[in-house]
Amino acid sequence: MSETPQLENIPEDTGKGLSNGMDTKQKEELELAAVYVSDAQHNRNIFFETQPQAVRLYLLYNHWLLVVLLYFFIMVNLLLAVVEQPALLPVPTWASMLVELVCLSVFSGRLVHYAKVIPRDKFWKDPKNLCILVILLLTLVDMIIYGALKATDIYSVRWSRVLRPLLLVNFTEGRQLRRAFRSIRNALPQILSVFLLFIFSILIFSLMALKLFGKRGLKTNSGKPYFTNFLEIVFDLYVLVTTANSPDIMMPAYNASSFFAVFFVIFILINTYIFMSVFLAVVYNNYKKYLKEEVRQLVRTKRHKMVRAFAILQERREGLEEPVVSHAFWNQLVRLVQADLSHAHRELLWSVADQHNQGYIGKLAFVQLADLLNIQVIAVKSRPHPLQRWSPSLYLSTPSRWLCRAVQHRVFVMVYDLIILVNAVFIGLDEEDPLVRNSEWFFLALYLLEILLKLYAMEPRAFYSRHNFWNWFDTIIIVSALVATIINTAMTSVGGYSSRQILDIVFTLRVLRLIRVVDSIKRFRVIINTLIKIGPTMLTFAQLIIVVYYIFAMVGMELFQGRIQFFDSDSPGKLSCGNPALQDSSFAQLNYCKNNFNNVVSSFILLVELTVVNQCGFTAVTHPSARLFFILFHIIVVIIIINIFVAFVLEAFFVEYTLEKSVLHTSLEKRIQELGVAQDDLGPSNLVDAMETTDNNLRTGKPQTRLMFKISSTRYRTVDSLLQRMFEADLDPEDFGGEDDPEESSNFNFSNPVFSSI
Amino acid sequence: MSETPQLENIPEDTGKGLSNGMDTKQKEELELAAVYVSDAQHNRNIFFETQPQAVRLYLLYNHWLLVVLLYFFIMVNLLLAVVEQPALLPVPTWASMLVELVCLSVFSGRLVHYAKVIPRDKFWKDPKNLCILVILLLTLVDMIIYGALKATDIYSVRWSRVLRPLLLVNFTEGRQLRRAFRSIRNALPQILSVFLLFIFSILIFSLMALKLFGKRGLKTNSGKPYFTNFLEIVFDLYVLVTTANSPDIMMPAYNASSFFAVFFVIFILINTYIFMSVFLAVVYNNYKKYLKEEVRQLVRTKRHKMVRAFAILQERREGLEEPVVSHAFWNQLVRLVQADLSHAHRELLWSVADQHNQGYIGKLAFVQLADLLNIQVIAVKSRPHPLQRWSPSLYLSTPSRWLCRAVQHRVFVMVYDLIILVNAVFIGLDEEDPLVRNSEWFFLALYLLEILLKLYAMEPRAFYSRHNFWNWFDTIIIVSALVATIINTAMTSVGGYSSRQILDIVFTLRVLRLIRVVDSIKRFRVIINTLIKIGPTMLTFAQLIIVVYYIFAMVGMELFQGRIQFFDSDSPGKLSCGNPALQDSSFAQLNYCKNNFNNVVSSFILLVELTVVNQCGFTAVTHPSARLFFILFHIIVVIIIINIFVAFVLEAFFVEYTLEKSVLHTSLEKRIQELGVAQDDLGPSNLVDAMETTDNNLRTGKPQTRLMFKISSTRYRTVDSLLQRMFEADLDPEDFGGEDDPEESSNFNFSNPVFSSI
Repeated sequence: MSETPQLENIPEDTGKGLSNGMDTKQKEELELAAVYVSDAQHNRNIFFETQPQAVRLYLLYNHWLLVVLLYFFIMVNLLLAVVEQPALLPVPTWASMLVELVCLSVFSGRLVHYAKVIPRDKFWKDPKNLCILVILLLTLVDMIIYGALKATDIYSVRWSRVLRPLLLVNFTEGRQLRRAFRSIRNALPQILSVFLLFIFSILIFSLMALKLFGKRGLKTNSGKPYFTNFLEIVFDLYVLVTTANSPDIMMPAYNASSFFAVFFVIFILINTYIFMSVFLAVVYNNYKKYLKEEVRQLVRTKRHKMVRAFAILQERREGLEEPVVSHAFWNQLVRLVQADLSHAHRELLWSVADQHNQGYIGKLAFVQLADLLNIQVIAVKSRPHPLQRWSPSLYLSTPSRWLCRAVQHRVFVMVYDLIILVNAVFIGLDEEDPLVRNSEWFFLALYLLEILLKLYAMEPRAFYSRHNFWNWFDTIIIVSALVATIINTAMTSVGGYSSRQILDIVFTLRVLRLIRVVDSIKRFRVIINTLIKIGPTMLTFAQLIIVVYYIFAMVGMELFQGRIQFFDSDSPGKLSCGNPALQDSSFAQLNYCKNNFNNVVSSFILLVELTVVNQCGFTAVTHPSARLFFILFHIIVVIIIINIFVAFVLEAFFVEYTLEKSVLHTSLEKRIQELGVAQDDLGPSNLVDAMETTDNNLRTGKPQTRLMFKISSTRYRTVDSLLQRMFEADLDPEDFGGEDDPEESSNFNFSNPVFSSI
Repeated sequence: MSETPQLENIPEDTGKGLSNGMDTKQKEELELAAVYVSDAQHNRNIFFETQPQAVRLYLLYNHWLLVVLLYFFIMVNLLLAVVEQPALLPVPTWASMLVELVCLSVFSGRLVHYAKVIPRDKFWKDPKNLCILVILLLTLVDMIIYGALKATDIYSVRWSRVLRPLLLVNFTEGRQLRRAFRSIRNALPQILSVFLLFIFSILIFSLMALKLFGKRGLKTNSGKPYFTNFLEIVFDLYVLVTTANSPDIMMPAYNASSFFAVFFVIFILINTYIFMSVFLAVVYNNYKKYLKEEVRQLVRTKRHKMVRAFAILQERREGLEEPVVSHAFWNQLVRLVQADLSHAHRELLWSVADQHNQGYIGKLAFVQLADLLNIQVIAVKSRPHPLQRWSPSLYLSTPSRWLCRAVQHRVFVMVYDLIILVNAVFIGLDEEDPLVRNSEWFFLALYLLEILLKLYAMEPRAFYSRHNFWNWFDTIIIVSALVATIINTAMTSVGGYSSRQILDIVFTLRVLRLIRVVDSIKRFRVIINTLIKIGPTMLTFAQLIIVVYYIFAMVGMELFQGRIQFFDSDSPGKLSCGNPALQDSSFAQLNYCKNNFNNVVSSFILLVELTVVNQCGFTAVTHPSARLFFILFHIIVVIIIINIFVAFVLEAFFVEYTLEKSVLHTSLEKRIQELGVAQDDLGPSNLVDAMETTDNNLRTGKPQTRLMFKISSTRYRTVDSLLQRMFEADLDPEDFGGEDDPEESSNFNFSNPVFSSI
């Protein structure tokens, strides 16, 4: 513990002095190395040219602003479906086409930029780029055809809209998404085997149903003949697997004889339970297998890149066999890679890499840098409360101290939990009662008081540090509720009526406030933390689902547009959803008319419903072959994607339950402990996030601003690090990816066949 | 390969000579050792007394006839529900009570038998026995009360029927079932955490729904106010998680405004997808964890028993430090343990144990015996076709040989697959058509011809050996179809009408015939084999489900009996299911009246429906609190048991995908190869199952009856060996279960606290 001052004693400008003395060549080399490290850290897999000009272009290509811009235009492009025919908000065709042209030019620009960054032959070999090019061209052709036909008033279809979500997949930034698609594609052969067997089973059961029930003259509830058409039976039994038409489909047979229930029970056992479990098993197993392989590849390419960076920075020292990298170069490099890292934090990382305090590190230690940078270390420092600085005597007086202790006491939390519960009861009571309505002000005041008290007891910057999710949550919810309630009261007292929309917001905020209780119960916190941890990766699945939904929505809109109409009032069309084929059908009777493909929003909601329960009543309005659309949707979304999602959640929870910290993680933690700068988790303290302050504070040397470190073990900076952690146990730290292996050396170019193809 | 005769040269009567010279004491000891080995082999965990008398009583206790008898009476006891009030087949009360008394006395007898086998203090310490005793007493008390009240015509309830399935759990034979229950019990705390969080989430959403939708004056499709009562909302949203009332529950809000769909989409995402996956993860993880622990315990107790057997048979030899068991004793022992093992098979096992041909084995090799006996080795021997013996010149003539080759050719299989497909089409066609009706004879003849041809080409005993599942399947199906078709035709031509029941059987058999196609497609065979392999263990889940269903059926019958009536004809009650509360309800309109608790069979079918979709329309006929019954059922069956089932299937498939053969398995296989008695899998041959023949054949020494061995890798003799295989990788073969550990030595008595408690 006596070593503590070590960090602060290291002169801050070792790096700077060096950089002044460097020539341009060295600077450029350092920049190149920094790009390699940054690519390794973020698992970027782009083979860029290494001329200084190209490197700068490449840095621009990776600039967050350009990436955000790209995503923005992809979003705009996708959202065009809202204003295009069949539109939710109709705009003139020329307007939407103009916006689409802007999007297309942005995409082309991005593609041209990419082409300039990487060597020409690599560009043309990569199917991603070809795919984008083809999509852009097809879209352009489609727009021209559509515009021409529109001008001559001929009905035409914007078929290229189906291709739009593929842009999301194929632009270089959609790595995770591409990986998920590859996982699916690789698992397909095995899934297909099970699927064929499953279909065979359904066909056999259908044939048996036809022979057993077809000739008995049974009628369904709507009076139609029961189980007489083979294809109808196959479809009905397929839907039974999804449990959507259970027990309706069984009732006629069951009413005829109890024995027939055996047929359906066996069917459900085999197809719904056993086959669906086997699907999950196959999807899960393949998903794990291929993902592991991909992550292995990922780690190897990452190490490759680090080895390249090392090769640039390395120097030979007398007495050492292996080349090394000096502290000064390393420091310069880390500054370039991550400018927001505090000096002390950088020194901490160095002390982990340079275990023996030699002033240089070898290849093995250097390669770890990318992973080290991905471990989220929170640097905090102790800092007095602003009130203390303003009036120390008052803030440090006995009543003030007593108040601070009281606020940080367990009972304070319990009292507020109780208040929340009482509030829940009041929320549930009738709003008309003036007592209940006015109680809201009381509760709001209590919550505000809580926040103010906490702010009094804690340093405000510590209270609102990046990692205190619940403090942010509380403040935002309470302040919004306050504002909304005031607006609502003002409107009521002025106009005499309250806006329904504002009331909705007020109510929602009020209920959301109750969620806070979860945080104070420990057994819930573990589950919530795991869920928050896997949250970012779930976004990959969200993208996956959006891509599939979008394609199905576009196709569905062309196929089923306008077949079913929703009438708000009691118009005569209401009982048939505006389609004579649905007159007196249960679809219309159950008021399902709004489940239609008439615009992109209702299409998406309908697809969500189809995901939950394969409810496909409205195949009645078109040809029976439209059922294929629904079966295909079920296979892709429910059997494949949902199962992969479940597999992912299972795997993430198992990792949480079983996996220990990585070696690197542990050694960093040990180092922090050794240096005596560990910040233990005991209660809230006056520590603020050091990242937000400049390094200059450090040099003032005041004792109360000493830096402390804490490893945030609950978050992963990137999705890749979560995945890597999942399969970490199987990876050899010494494996630099077959440098000596001639077979593998083609991989060394990062062209990496596995990662570039989709 | 020249070593082959080795097996046949070993004198057969080494064991017999020895047994003649043995005194009674030695014989008794050998018997005791055999009981230990047999217990180890079958994973029985009973601490019996070791006096010769008690051992014989214990052998009787384990006799298969008594075990079958016990299961028969448990079944009879459970099936009494069919004839008791509310009865499917009413019989006088005295008759059913008489049968129940017989059952009770059988159970008491079994319990007394068990009490005599094990020491008194062990008997009273085991909660299983106390549980059975209490159940028997309670049942008796209930019967007396019921009989007395019945005699005085007072309505009473046979409440003790709920206890009946617990007998299935608590009798010593229900090991697997008990283990499953223990797994569930151990996983409960963790499941509870997630469940509470899940309920909290539903409550929050319900409160939000109440505030958002309650005051809008929306109406459900049946005209009732929408989302105005908090408890109703909670129930509706709980049912929405099971997807049973999707999208009905959403439609009123969605029709009012598309924005409200967001509420339901978020609800489904969080509760249906994320929470249900987390449930699976938690159940799966705990199931695996505890099962692993239990299997570890199981293996240790098994080794204990083998060590005990070893201690009885061991002898000291000069020049050896460790005691050993001689070949002669070992031989005697195996004979006693498994009398149906052929001499050659026994010698094979010995040669695996005694790797260095020393004539004795140490403890480590001896302990493996239980596992060795559990590896299913198929001993087959070459044997000429009966026709060849009858007329060699004819059978071995060129046309006959050509025929045999043709039948065994790939094309023959393909031709018959084609025939099956054509047959499938004919089955699908209309039966009224005389061409189609007569084609049936043609196909039957073709199938018969196939079986006869195969019998001509192959040795009949080889064709019908135990492991040729599909040959047995074919023959049974074809012969049954033939008989049923003949009866049907006879009845039609005599009486002019065909019986519907017989036609059903004919149709079913015809369709089942088509399943055979699966066997000839290789990619299907892997999946089917895995399913067949885990089949026996699925029976454990079947028992588990039956226990839970039975209890819910008994309670349900008491609660809901007669509330809903089913009318076959168009009686006036049909539209209300005989209950005014259901008049014009969608329950009655959808013709669900037969879904009731009026007898045990319809209760079970209803419970299956509830498992698939939580359809609980008929809570309308009783108090709303009856919904608790359905929620409880859903939690226990769907959230817990189905998830454990899925976890089991997943685990079994992963084991299939990843696990290699066990060490013992491999060494046995290697030994078979070394001895040159391996039977390779190439095509059907004239090998018959040697198990069915006596050992005498072996001594005739004819070259054509040479024994061959094959390890049947696809089946497990016992559920335990499958489980053991699942977790094999984690078990240390040298771990004899802490003999030296004083803490563990209490376990050495097999009283084994983990295994005896439920």
